[in-house]
Amino acid sequence: MTAAHDTGNDVTDLVIGILGGTGDQGRGLARRLAMAGFTVIIGSRDAARAATTAGALGGPPSLSGASNEEAAQRSDVVIAAMPWEGHCGLLTALAGELAGKVLIDCVNPIGFDKRGAFALQVAEGSAAQQAALVLPDSQVVGAFHHVSATLLLDPEVDRIELDVLVLGDNRAATDLVAAIASRIPGMRGVYGGRLRNCGQIEALTANLVSINRRYKAHAGLRITDV
Amino acid sequence: MTAAHDTGNDVTDLVIGILGGTGDQGRGLARRLAMAGFTVIIGSRDAARAATTAGALGGPPSLSGASNEEAAQRSDVVIAAMPWEGHCGLLTALAGELAGKVLIDCVNPIGFDKRGAFALQVAEGSAAQQAALVLPDSQVVGAFHHVSATLLLDPEVDRIELDVLVLGDNRAATDLVAAIASRIPGMRGVYGGRLRNCGQIEALTANLVSINRRYKAHAGLRITDV
Repeated sequence: MTAAHDTGNDVTDLVIGILGGTGDQGRGLARRLAMAGFTVIIGSRDAARAATTAGALGGPPSLSGASNEEAAQRSDVVIAAMPWEGHCGLLTALAGELAGKVLIDCVNPIGFDKRGAFALQVAEGSAAQQAALVLPDSQVVGAFHHVSATLLLDPEVDRIELDVLVLGDNRAATDLVAAIASRIPGMRGVYGGRLRNCGQIEALTANLVSINRRYKAHAGLRITDV
Repeated sequence: MTAAHDTGNDVTDLVIGILGGTGDQGRGLARRLAMAGFTVIIGSRDAARAATTAGALGGPPSLSGASNEEAAQRSDVVIAAMPWEGHCGLLTALAGELAGKVLIDCVNPIGFDKRGAFALQVAEGSAAQQAALVLPDSQVVGAFHHVSATLLLDPEVDRIELDVLVLGDNRAATDLVAAIASRIPGMRGVYGGRLRNCGQIEALTANLVSINRRYKAHAGLRITDV
């Protein structure tokens, strides 16, 4: 049995940018990645708001804020954490800045109605496949879909106990992202398949919302036998 | 935190039929459910073949074979485990026998090509939703999608360590199926959402196939914090 997280990547020198990083998911990931030793740049349409958000997170010097454009330019690896509504537009606008880089897509196209959460239909199959279409010169990897923002932001929570499913068509890129995920205590990056199988991973977030409601939990996944 | 499997259902007196029960998944579930104390009827187009299959599984007296029709008639709860290609036709034909019963759908509409497994498009959204459409007088529950047939059939494996996600729109039916799943050592039935969110659970089987190939594993899911 191969240890899923033992990909041999030395990743701690990476600068990680987070597009749409002032939302709950973006802030939570920024906080945990900075705590794990990465240099993190929170991106926002409003650079001042990004800087304020970075400061409000306790502001280790490795955590700063910038415009989305600058975050994309200055980072080695970039996480797309904007709302689904802004996903296509912002990535298309930043295609030049993101060229040659790994783009981690954690966006979940999910809707809510009175019966709870449900998966939205995505013409390209998934948010990650949409990203790959508008970013032909980037390596798109799907990951971090199921991480509870509440847990990421909770100062009482030391470990986030779950596996991060990492999807993509390039082995070096998925290995890199798995190694990044595995730097956060409790998390483990596990390869989860090709990008064409990312739609169901994004949609699964609707099930986790249902589970959270039924069991009053912050549910995540572990993969057994890996 | 509510114990996911503690639904208070006394289920051991149930007779469970398995349509298409001579396939690997059906045989594996039949074996484990019989070992867990249920009376199990393996169904097949060919009743003699079903009887042979039941005998080859070691044949506890609680495990027998019959035609699909008879298995549906004589059972309290029925599992649909036929190949996806035969799913709609067989369930439509048995709508009368299945009326008033809980139908557990574990069918995964999955295709394979040289790049591996992928989710098939299903017009109704999922196999389980298709079942609900053709069985308006049954309670359809999606469950047992991710259980490895190899593990179910392995005489060296005492416990199947995974959570069975149970999806449906009727609370009594999903509680019943969760209780059935929780009777198998190592397994735990966990409510996983409404039937409209079953497509991604079925499709996730393609990801598990990819994980199994990458890590040489028989991967399953555990839900954390539940």
